[in-house]
Amino acid sequence: MTALDRAASIADLRRLARRRLPRSIFEFIDGGAGDERTLRDNADHLAALRLMPRVGVDVAARSAAVDIVGRRSALPLVLAPTGLAGLFWPGGEMAAARAAQAAGISFCLSTNSVASIEEVAAAVPGVDRWFQLYFLKDEALMDRMLARAAASGYRVLCLTLDLAVQGRRDRDIRNAFTVPLRPRLKTVLEVALRPAWLAGFLRAPVRFGNFEADAPQTGFSSMAQHVAKLCDASANWGTIARVAAKWHGPVVIKGVLAPDDARRAVDLGAAAVIVSNHGGRQLDHVPSAAAALPGVVEAVAGRAQVLLDGGVRRGTDVIKAKALGADACMIGRPFLWGLAAAGEPGVARTLSIFAEEIAIAQALLGRPDFAAIDRSVLSDL
Amino acid sequence: MTALDRAASIADLRRLARRRLPRSIFEFIDGGAGDERTLRDNADHLAALRLMPRVGVDVAARSAAVDIVGRRSALPLVLAPTGLAGLFWPGGEMAAARAAQAAGISFCLSTNSVASIEEVAAAVPGVDRWFQLYFLKDEALMDRMLARAAASGYRVLCLTLDLAVQGRRDRDIRNAFTVPLRPRLKTVLEVALRPAWLAGFLRAPVRFGNFEADAPQTGFSSMAQHVAKLCDASANWGTIARVAAKWHGPVVIKGVLAPDDARRAVDLGAAAVIVSNHGGRQLDHVPSAAAALPGVVEAVAGRAQVLLDGGVRRGTDVIKAKALGADACMIGRPFLWGLAAAGEPGVARTLSIFAEEIAIAQALLGRPDFAAIDRSVLSDL
Amino acid sequence: MTALDRAASIADLRRLARRRLPRSIFEFIDGGAGDERTLRDNADHLAALRLMPRVGVDVAARSAAVDIVGRRSALPLVLAPTGLAGLFWPGGEMAAARAAQAAGISFCLSTNSVASIEEVAAAVPGVDRWFQLYFLKDEALMDRMLARAAASGYRVLCLTLDLAVQGRRDRDIRNAFTVPLRPRLKTVLEVALRPAWLAGFLRAPVRFGNFEADAPQTGFSSMAQHVAKLCDASANWGTIARVAAKWHGPVVIKGVLAPDDARRAVDLGAAAVIVSNHGGRQLDHVPSAAAALPGVVEAVAGRAQVLLDGGVRRGTDVIKAKALGADACMIGRPFLWGLAAAGEPGVARTLSIFAEEIAIAQALLGRPDFAAIDRSVLSDL
Amino acid sequence: MTALDRAASIADLRRLARRRLPRSIFEFIDGGAGDERTLRDNADHLAALRLMPRVGVDVAARSAAVDIVGRRSALPLVLAPTGLAGLFWPGGEMAAARAAQAAGISFCLSTNSVASIEEVAAAVPGVDRWFQLYFLKDEALMDRMLARAAASGYRVLCLTLDLAVQGRRDRDIRNAFTVPLRPRLKTVLEVALRPAWLAGFLRAPVRFGNFEADAPQTGFSSMAQHVAKLCDASANWGTIARVAAKWHGPVVIKGVLAPDDARRAVDLGAAAVIVSNHGGRQLDHVPSAAAALPGVVEAVAGRAQVLLDGGVRRGTDVIKAKALGADACMIGRPFLWGLAAAGEPGVARTLSIFAEEIAIAQALLGRPDFAAIDRSVLSDL
Ligand SMILES: Cc1cc2nc3c(=O)[nH]c(=O)nc-3n(C[C@H](O)[C@H](O)[C@H](O)COP(=O)(O)O)c2cc1C
Ligand SMILES: Cc1cc2nc3c(=O)[nH]c(=O)nc-3n(C[C@H](O)[C@H](O)[C@H](O)COP(=O)(O)O)c2cc1C
Ligand SMILES: Cc1cc2nc3c(=O)[nH]c(=O)nc-3n(C[C@H](O)[C@H](O)[C@H](O)COP(=O)(O)O)c2cc1C
Ligand SMILES: Cc1cc2nc3c(=O)[nH]c(=O)nc-3n(C[C@H](O)[C@H](O)[C@H](O)COP(=O)(O)O)c2cc1C
Repeated sequence: MTALDRAASIADLRRLARRRLPRSIFEFIDGGAGDERTLRDNADHLAALRLMPRVGVDVAARSAAVDIVGRRSALPLVLAPTGLAGLFWPGGEMAAARAAQAAGISFCLSTNSVASIEEVAAAVPGVDRWFQLYFLKDEALMDRMLARAAASGYRVLCLTLDLAVQGRRDRDIRNAFTVPLRPRLKTVLEVALRPAWLAGFLRAPVRFGNFEADAPQTGFSSMAQHVAKLCDASANWGTIARVAAKWHGPVVIKGVLAPDDARRAVDLGAAAVIVSNHGGRQLDHVPSAAAALPGVVEAVAGRAQVLLDGGVRRGTDVIKAKALGADACMIGRPFLWGLAAAGEPGVARTLSIFAEEIAIAQALLGRPDFAAIDRSVLSDL
Repeated sequence: MTALDRAASIADLRRLARRRLPRSIFEFIDGGAGDERTLRDNADHLAALRLMPRVGVDVAARSAAVDIVGRRSALPLVLAPTGLAGLFWPGGEMAAARAAQAAGISFCLSTNSVASIEEVAAAVPGVDRWFQLYFLKDEALMDRMLARAAASGYRVLCLTLDLAVQGRRDRDIRNAFTVPLRPRLKTVLEVALRPAWLAGFLRAPVRFGNFEADAPQTGFSSMAQHVAKLCDASANWGTIARVAAKWHGPVVIKGVLAPDDARRAVDLGAAAVIVSNHGGRQLDHVPSAAAALPGVVEAVAGRAQVLLDGGVRRGTDVIKAKALGADACMIGRPFLWGLAAAGEPGVARTLSIFAEEIAIAQALLGRPDFAAIDRSVLSDL
Repeated sequence: MTALDRAASIADLRRLARRRLPRSIFEFIDGGAGDERTLRDNADHLAALRLMPRVGVDVAARSAAVDIVGRRSALPLVLAPTGLAGLFWPGGEMAAARAAQAAGISFCLSTNSVASIEEVAAAVPGVDRWFQLYFLKDEALMDRMLARAAASGYRVLCLTLDLAVQGRRDRDIRNAFTVPLRPRLKTVLEVALRPAWLAGFLRAPVRFGNFEADAPQTGFSSMAQHVAKLCDASANWGTIARVAAKWHGPVVIKGVLAPDDARRAVDLGAAAVIVSNHGGRQLDHVPSAAAALPGVVEAVAGRAQVLLDGGVRRGTDVIKAKALGADACMIGRPFLWGLAAAGEPGVARTLSIFAEEIAIAQALLGRPDFAAIDRSVLSDL
Repeated sequence: MTALDRAASIADLRRLARRRLPRSIFEFIDGGAGDERTLRDNADHLAALRLMPRVGVDVAARSAAVDIVGRRSALPLVLAPTGLAGLFWPGGEMAAARAAQAAGISFCLSTNSVASIEEVAAAVPGVDRWFQLYFLKDEALMDRMLARAAASGYRVLCLTLDLAVQGRRDRDIRNAFTVPLRPRLKTVLEVALRPAWLAGFLRAPVRFGNFEADAPQTGFSSMAQHVAKLCDASANWGTIARVAAKWHGPVVIKGVLAPDDARRAVDLGAAAVIVSNHGGRQLDHVPSAAAALPGVVEAVAGRAQVLLDGGVRRGTDVIKAKALGADACMIGRPFLWGLAAAGEPGVARTLSIFAEEIAIAQALLGRPDFAAIDRSVLSDL
């Protein structure tokens, strides 16, 4: 029995990741903006909700399959777009995509991935692929990315709106985190303590794969510098509509908390709104995703799907999100921890833990049919 | 003065149990599902209630005797059904049953006991015996168990409904807990540190006593595997009614939190409904037993008795449960800790602590008559 | 500058007491019943209240003098009756009484004092003396005590009603605390580590001074045994009225939380009702004194004085109690900590800290006249 | 990259200050009155508020400039008056004033500064200077100070009303903190561990610069003694009006929490009311500045400006204060920590952290114009 088998929960996978990653890199995943209150709220507000079990129901046959943006998903989960996944495990994006395919769910590639649009598509052609785009100052560059994603068979475009500027992540500032890692004494020591990670890292150098052709990467750059150089703080709903219109397929809008913003997203044709504060990484002291969810659900009023993103750590969280009106959830750190712990089998473990937790919760709640779960499963006791 | 005499509280007995048991086994008792929030809520929600004392009342003569399912009990307590009690102390089921008899209360044997239905009855014929049954896939096997329990003079049948599947107990997964303990390096070390427990364990090998004839036990099995193999996730209210009808005596229904489920249990003739989330061991994030109690009491509306099960740790908890409408309480871990600490005298200590705490609370609350305690003893200050 | 001078707060005096007392004895003072929730609530509920400061008020001249049960007190404080004060410092009762006299406040002697009624009166004739009485099984003995207290010039009789039986104080049970200390290995070690205390202890042996003539003390006795032997659990409002009628002077009733009990106390002529849960030492999980205060104030409706007892640790607590309708406060542990730390100067320090904290709070709240403080000083912000 | 560059937050600067200052001096800055609940509430109540981000807004151009008491300020911040700044860094008042000037904000000198009114004016003529005055017993001395401040070009008079007497700061009492530090063994050791601070301290002896001519400073004096000797506890609204009338320029009133006091301040012509509890240093258990703010804003009703003072630690706090109706904020400890850590560059770092945090928050909240921020940015989720 390996340590991975004995990982009972997402929290256990996080512990395994911490053991394998250099500290600055672990903290880059783990951390959030400011005092990390919103980061903690994301998980805490979900955990605080209570579910009412029902007994005497035949629950021998259970299913948690759902339709997400026009495609059947074996689980109500999507792998969230995360930059630099390849920094945590060599070929990280491909490893995660493979695990997603095996589990029958979708994978969303980040603008800031290590592996490029084309590399992921070539390596894992069978996974349902989404491409996440930030608004770039250079509109031509943005157009080229859209064209590349379309050409590589990405089905869904995910526009992330909550990164007008990069949030202040205190831990990254304190760690002087850059890409590549700047060889300071502190980081050298950290890295020396993590030989397994280092071996992989030397095999697979880190870069921003999607910018290679267009924005030559020289020297050390913090994420904040990278974002400041490339991202467009002036993008408004007009810009958003214009970019969305260029995509021939479903567009989902990520990073919305305010009901009015959700309404505007739907007005411009979004197939789904992703309620998200970027995992607490952008602005601290904003509402948790779970707290914001009901307002967005009400505003969307069934005109589009709603996904909850942020703080999902347990199968019961997925059920709670569904009860509050979400069609499915995105998960970020949970799969990155699995990835950093053990590569593709690690992500597989993340997904199997969720699958099992959801199935058991459905049984014990007396709700064999995931799609039928509604507010009545919540308890205010 | 022994350590047992100096144990002032149930929490002290827990500490003694921790010192005597191998860690995996202690955690099998102590742990719960998931993040153990419901487990903590069970105790916390009781503890958070406040009682209003009255003075100037003659409290020289006090009694806490009550009728439970048609029989006078010296205390408003029943020993809850718990699997594998014989793993914590050699002959654990018999030891607990003897202490129950001495204290004038009832003992409920679990489906998953080490000692069989017949062994317990033969060894402790004088105790009021209940038999707890899970719904088994093999209906004939279930019928045989009912017949054996009836033949061995068990008075009450306790049907536990909240185990359609086994909950995920993270600690057991992490500990790779199996029956018998799989001899991994970690468990070998744990066990080596607990020679007193080991000596008893070698004398009295652990098995599922009630299944011996029917389901030969070979190799190592986790509780989850054992349950998955035997228990029937398809049991519904029809099945329940059918099984209940086979018992010639009082049937009590254990594992209900939702008022509507309580109503159905009473409709099919239950003599008592046991408000319980299985001690927080099945699904985390469900309401605490104390929070669910008032809703069940209202739904039952006097047509059956109501027992509270889960989180009872103090005499005041028993009084609070009574004030919220419960007729009595079941206790699980409190007696297992006593048992693991010192066998029969340990369980006796558990019960004498409760008896003394209840008596003192009655005196200081100005409520010498337990049966007369109602909501007016609660305070919202 | 001594450690006593540098003690900035009551909490600092507690730390000094901890350093000087054997652990079991420190815990006898410090501890409470059960899980000590009510003990903590007593202080926490006072601390949680907020006061609204006013500026631009001439506060050069301030006074906190008040009338308590017919006598002018320099501070709105009374030293609470506490058993065994002589165990914490040789001649503890006399030391405390002297400090009370010096500070211009009253001192209440406990039934269970080390120094007898007569010894205290002889040693500190100038202090305003109250005598606290428990209800004893032996009515003649009670009559003799009343006669002795009257003969020795005690002005006020304080009847404590919340000790029908002794509460379970888990720490004392765990420590096997007895009077005198039973010489177990553990206590011998504890005592050896506290030579200063031991020296005083050898000079002044501990006994229940008021029972010497009547109840010969032989061997080791826990407080619970002492109380069980002597106290009368059958005392009711009739008994109380009969005993109160025997006293020619003001009678105050201590240990009331329920408004109806306060009303009955006033009906039988009490000059003051002391809202108290015995400092959290009798029954855990009852309301804090502060939470119970407003209900009692309303019930008493000005027909008697009301004193708050329990959890007073800061000058602001005294002001809060006044704002909630109390005329003054009793303090128990705060003066015992001072006493245990340094004898009479220690108690003097307790009182000077309170005096200074009250005076500063009056200045900064813009309330130079203590008597005029009312609810308007409280803020719900 | 220096430690100062890597300081990501005000909390990081606090840690640097702790490393450089002798403990008693660090605690003199850090500490508050009593149990420091109000001190904690100040920061906690701001932190607990939630902000609702809006997306799809062009935030490329952002400004946080505001008018404060008739002058344009580059940031909505004023450096609060703090006594003894020169004790934390040689020439501390000048260093802070210079950093304020560089950042385009105002600096308020304390009555109890080390550097005198004239020294600061001479050294940093370009900064917008405010002078803070306590009410002194010696009215002629007060008049002289006003005249000196006017002659030295201080623009605004800040009358602090919440120091009728000095609050009890338990840590200072425990540390026996005096000016100069009394050379006890404990302080000698503390100081020996902080050679960098000591070197500066020897260069720049500490004194109360504004009292030199009038109140010769001999021997050791605690702040409480200093205040008791000089400050006038009898000052009332009449005195306040009289003193305010002597100043030819804007008068601001600091230390108000009660709406009625704010109203009186405005009635006598205050240009601004500073909602403050003196950073939790005067009376513990009073409302936090943030909790008191809305009441004051309502009472002032636009007739004067309102500044929030106390607990501001993050850019988001400044935005929250604005949302609750404050025109700007004062900061005390945040700039003192920067100062103690590194002198002028340290204060500059404090201000650049605030500037950057505010700018990022404006971007991510979709509020490029600080002046337009109102309650709608707050969320009750
Ligand atoms: C290391 C890391 C990198 C991320 N990079 C991106 C990104 O490039 N684009 C994006 O839209 N979101 C990004 N996110 C946010 C995730 O998509 C997602 O919103 C967030 O992780 C959800 O919260 P959770 O981690 O609690 O599940 C990133 C998150 C992490 C942890
Ligand atoms: C070690 C252990 C084994 C248990 N086994 C069973 C069982 O076999 N059948 C059952 O109905 N409940 C079982 N329970 C649940 C108890 O009957 C009871 O509901 C629970 O312990 C009550 O919570 P408490 O431990 O806080 O008192 C078990 C509980 C524990 C701790
Ligand atoms: C060591 C100790 C002994 C006490 N003994 C008595 C007693 O003999 N009679 C009595 O009425 N109360 C007794 N009390 C309770 C006090 O009178 C008082 O109600 C309590 O200490 C108030 O709470 P405080 O300690 O938080 O101030 C005792 C309290 C302590 C701490
Ligand atoms: C070390 C120190 C000295 C202070 N001295 C003064 C002073 O002389 N006059 C005054 O009005 N306020 C004084 N204050 C209070 C500040 O002006 C301000 O109200 C407080 O620091 C605000 O809280 P903050 O520290 O949380 O920002 C002082 C504060 C500190 C920390």
